[in-house]
Amino acid sequence: MNKTSKIPVPTIERLALYSRPLENLLDNGVLVISSVKLADLCGVNPAQVRKDLAYFGEFGTRGVGYDVQDLLKEIKRILATDREWALCIVGIGNLGNALVENENFRKRGYKFLAAFDSDPRKVNRVLYCGLTIKPASKITQLVRELHIEIGVIATPPFEAQKVTNLLIDSGVKAILNFAPVQVRAPEGCLVENVDFTVRLENLAYHIREPL
Amino acid sequence: MNKTSKIPVPTIERLALYSRPLENLLDNGVLVISSVKLADLCGVNPAQVRKDLAYFGEFGTRGVGYDVQDLLKEIKRILATDREWALCIVGIGNLGNALVENENFRKRGYKFLAAFDSDPRKVNRVLYCGLTIKPASKITQLVRELHIEIGVIATPPFEAQKVTNLLIDSGVKAILNFAPVQVRAPEGCLVENVDFTVRLENLAYHIREPL
Repeated sequence: MNKTSKIPVPTIERLALYSRPLENLLDNGVLVISSVKLADLCGVNPAQVRKDLAYFGEFGTRGVGYDVQDLLKEIKRILATDREWALCIVGIGNLGNALVENENFRKRGYKFLAAFDSDPRKVNRVLYCGLTIKPASKITQLVRELHIEIGVIATPPFEAQKVTNLLIDSGVKAILNFAPVQVRAPEGCLVENVDFTVRLENLAYHIREPL
Repeated sequence: MNKTSKIPVPTIERLALYSRPLENLLDNGVLVISSVKLADLCGVNPAQVRKDLAYFGEFGTRGVGYDVQDLLKEIKRILATDREWALCIVGIGNLGNALVENENFRKRGYKFLAAFDSDPRKVNRVLYCGLTIKPASKITQLVRELHIEIGVIATPPFEAQKVTNLLIDSGVKAILNFAPVQVRAPEGCLVENVDFTVRLENLAYHIREPL
């Protein structure tokens, strides 16, 4: 199915969004949903829903709607969320704690198998989720042993690039970076930099007084 | 300057990204930077930098580069980050704590003036940043008194829409929602829904085995 390699990133992100209400609908016994209703639940327009889903072949029946279960199953297959992913987190401050305990990660198959911190006072502390914080010096060994695929970074900014390099050398395929600095990865490893202030700046730009 | 009302959102988001290395350069006494170098620092391509900055008129000198100080000042003016913004946060769990103590928010002029939680055990607790947690029943009164412009939500999902409605009725102009549910706002109020699992799904999609 070569077609999926050309899917634009915004479509991928919207597929993830579509899956949220579909899960609720399925839990509530709803069998079929129209593109208009699904669009409304997700806050996008119906033409967008139809266009996005068209990338993946024919899910719907014209004039009836989409089969909720089939559509959700297909979206999960495409996004590879019908399997589990092995994650580790580096940096267990407030944010690291929030991430590692995030119920939605777990529910969606993103499992933290290891947690690291360079602060000796935190090492060996047992987290609510059951993980024991390991020293940063164990990153390479544990990433390899546990076959960690995605590294999540929540360190202070000055440590983030060093940790990125270490995680990649140890074999992770992707990095989700929450440290407030842009980190880079060599070809073949993916990095997503999450910067909350960018979201605020975007909001502020739109509600500011006109220039 | 009507032109700025047509700026695409991705450009706005990149302007925020460009401002990060520019701040560092300025701190380190660098006066001029080329689009190639700035692009490299931000992980985007130079043509993109030139195109984005062209929306805002002529900043650069061909063959020389951009004046770091002028460019940063202009970006901050455009993004309205040359002023302070009044924020409140609702929901003081791990994530709420991480957000309210975030140094980058403060540094960029996003000031939390109030923190709310509906859990009576948390009310009256004093946060590290100096704020005292107030009960959710005080939201309307304090948002009005403190002229809060942006509400940040870090509650459990089932409370997020109710809190959104309350914040908007109380007068905030924008919502940044971290609760794992899409909240909506009426016309005239902006909402950004931040969902970390969407970022993970995006990464997982790109590193998954081909279908």
